[in-house]
Amino acid sequence: MVNASAQGVIEAARHAGVSLCAARHGLSGLHRGELLDLDAVPQRQWQQLSTLPGTCFGASREMLPPYNAAPETWHQLRDVLCGAGIGTVLLNGGNGSMTIALRLTEFGQRLGYPLRVIGIPKTIDNDLVATHFSPGYPSAAKYLAASVRELALDVSSLGPGRVMLLETMGRNAGWLAAGCAAAARHPGDAPHLLLLPEVPYRPERLLDALDTCLRRHGHAVLVVAEGVRDDNGLLLAEQPYTPGSPFQQLGGAAQRVASYLAQQRGLHVHVAVADCLQRAARHLVSALDLRLAQAAGRTALEWALQGQSGVMVGLRPARGKEDWEMAAVALADVADAERLLPASYIGADGFSVSPDFLDYLRPLLQGEDWPPFADGLPSYPSLQWPLLRWQ
Amino acid sequence: MVNASAQGVIEAARHAGVSLCAARHGLSGLHRGELLDLDAVPQRQWQQLSTLPGTCFGASREMLPPYNAAPETWHQLRDVLCGAGIGTVLLNGGNGSMTIALRLTEFGQRLGYPLRVIGIPKTIDNDLVATHFSPGYPSAAKYLAASVRELALDVSSLGPGRVMLLETMGRNAGWLAAGCAAAARHPGDAPHLLLLPEVPYRPERLLDALDTCLRRHGHAVLVVAEGVRDDNGLLLAEQPYTPGSPFQQLGGAAQRVASYLAQQRGLHVHVAVADCLQRAARHLVSALDLRLAQAAGRTALEWALQGQSGVMVGLRPARGKEDWEMAAVALADVADAERLLPASYIGADGFSVSPDFLDYLRPLLQGEDWPPFADGLPSYPSLQWPLLRWQ
Repeated sequence: MVNASAQGVIEAARHAGVSLCAARHGLSGLHRGELLDLDAVPQRQWQQLSTLPGTCFGASREMLPPYNAAPETWHQLRDVLCGAGIGTVLLNGGNGSMTIALRLTEFGQRLGYPLRVIGIPKTIDNDLVATHFSPGYPSAAKYLAASVRELALDVSSLGPGRVMLLETMGRNAGWLAAGCAAAARHPGDAPHLLLLPEVPYRPERLLDALDTCLRRHGHAVLVVAEGVRDDNGLLLAEQPYTPGSPFQQLGGAAQRVASYLAQQRGLHVHVAVADCLQRAARHLVSALDLRLAQAAGRTALEWALQGQSGVMVGLRPARGKEDWEMAAVALADVADAERLLPASYIGADGFSVSPDFLDYLRPLLQGEDWPPFADGLPSYPSLQWPLLRWQ
Repeated sequence: MVNASAQGVIEAARHAGVSLCAARHGLSGLHRGELLDLDAVPQRQWQQLSTLPGTCFGASREMLPPYNAAPETWHQLRDVLCGAGIGTVLLNGGNGSMTIALRLTEFGQRLGYPLRVIGIPKTIDNDLVATHFSPGYPSAAKYLAASVRELALDVSSLGPGRVMLLETMGRNAGWLAAGCAAAARHPGDAPHLLLLPEVPYRPERLLDALDTCLRRHGHAVLVVAEGVRDDNGLLLAEQPYTPGSPFQQLGGAAQRVASYLAQQRGLHVHVAVADCLQRAARHLVSALDLRLAQAAGRTALEWALQGQSGVMVGLRPARGKEDWEMAAVALADVADAERLLPASYIGADGFSVSPDFLDYLRPLLQGEDWPPFADGLPSYPSLQWPLLRWQ
């Protein structure tokens, strides 16, 4: 949905006659002064942006340290901003990006460089506070719930005793795993057991729950969040090697659980790991998600033109209407804050979600937006952005 | 595609006014005399069959042993066939199912029970001989190739040094892994390296190829077939525990390769495991696959009515036309035979496919056939089949 928001930004900028560039690979590109000239891009090109998965300008995992920790970084950044004549920065991302956005708001105060900064939410993890949801999440949840519905039909047709596990992303938050619950239409439908990061993993309890499930339904579909932790707060699994990254890479929890269940019960256990598929699957997105990601981008630019700064675009359902509204949220309230699945959204057994969660989720999944297909496959355009010559 | 073929069979039976039942869970259900009364099902119900993933009558992994190994099994089966008045059996599946079909053709000779038997090909592994392709394969390949195209856009946007692995099914055959190659439109596009079961896995060679790829493209997308073996013919990975099954369950090869690459090169490596998703993803099928699966079912029934037996419906492109034709293939030629990816379909480097393979594959992926959606998710009907009272 980064691309959809970018499309919204470009659209609003064209409409307002404002000059626009994009930092290649976000903060990393800004540092190096690698700016893409969006003014030079014809309309038919940027209008295809929202049909693309991924992040067409490139993503960054670099973090902007506080001024006192690395003043040279700040001066370097100011030189680029100043040199390219940039007065406003829009940042699209999760809580890491909002922390960068917050720090950028200090530019005027620290360096005498007046910079307007607006955050645009986007994270499939859905763990940003102060927004009803983060663009990206509804589409990932839709893909996962559709996949669970399909896996359930597959596994149930294989006869009794089959167990299927699907591992979801989401880091410390269970939103994506919980999202799979939308697959169920009737009591007893898959997914049967959710392993959420918010609920400590107790193998014996899981085994009991699985036994009950197999007795009742003959088969079981389990969803395992990558961030599941045991009673001591230890992750069930991490990837073996992740050098030089501020983030520990998760993954492997479902395989860990599957091996345990297979050994304890002598069962056929299958494991699917959606990994990046769940955020890249442009072929199966929520039309609502796409529309609001675009709207968030447009809003961010409009707010910047109105002189706002230091805020993130928060999405919330408009009262008494079928539509949505955008509310300015202080970046200070969002940066570094992590919204886990609230207790009221988790079922009493710890392996399910509450009806309240489903009421929250279902409206977010609405509508399809197929990409164009050619030769039997989604036909994603190959977009080229010229470098801005500002130096 | 089992459901699509079943729909074709039902359609042809209705058309011919022939009575039809289905064995619940295939051979296992036939043994137990669990037969479903398809004559009692209204048209609006069976016409929805092809919109369903999985196998709506249930699958079986049971094998029919040779007569001399288990005569009582054969007598039991004859009692059910005789009791229910069944003169024709249509079997839908891969080489295991065709072996069962072949053995069933001996019924007349062994037990004095005249039985007509027709095989209908269906396996995402595409490893049946004597048919241009097996229904199920094109759709699974389409899903995988679309996924690779999406993963590639995701991983390339993350910046240099990223490696993404996708594990595919296919047992000993590399058709599914090779199918991912359709994702590439231009030289250098993902997938960059395919690890096929037909090519022995040599870690050092892979490392060299990966280095070259990262130098050239900055990132790499690898496809790892679950059935990859080393120089000694040993599988890279199997699932730890698979009791009581004639089939060793594979899976885990990609994670094995990923750990090796991460350790050797200190890279960020992501692993997605499509597992059953690749055969259950009804939301993204090949329309050609669906149409020919239905046609294979219709043909099987028509052939049976013409008195044919002991054959499988082989699919082949009609010469000089845009269409397909069905050719009867002796079950004896198909049963237990396994069609691996031929050498002419494998690229000279061992990590790619040849242009000939892409010429083979691309026509198979054509056309989309979306299932109905409701409330943001694919709306798969819940079909009920009444039990046949024959005892």
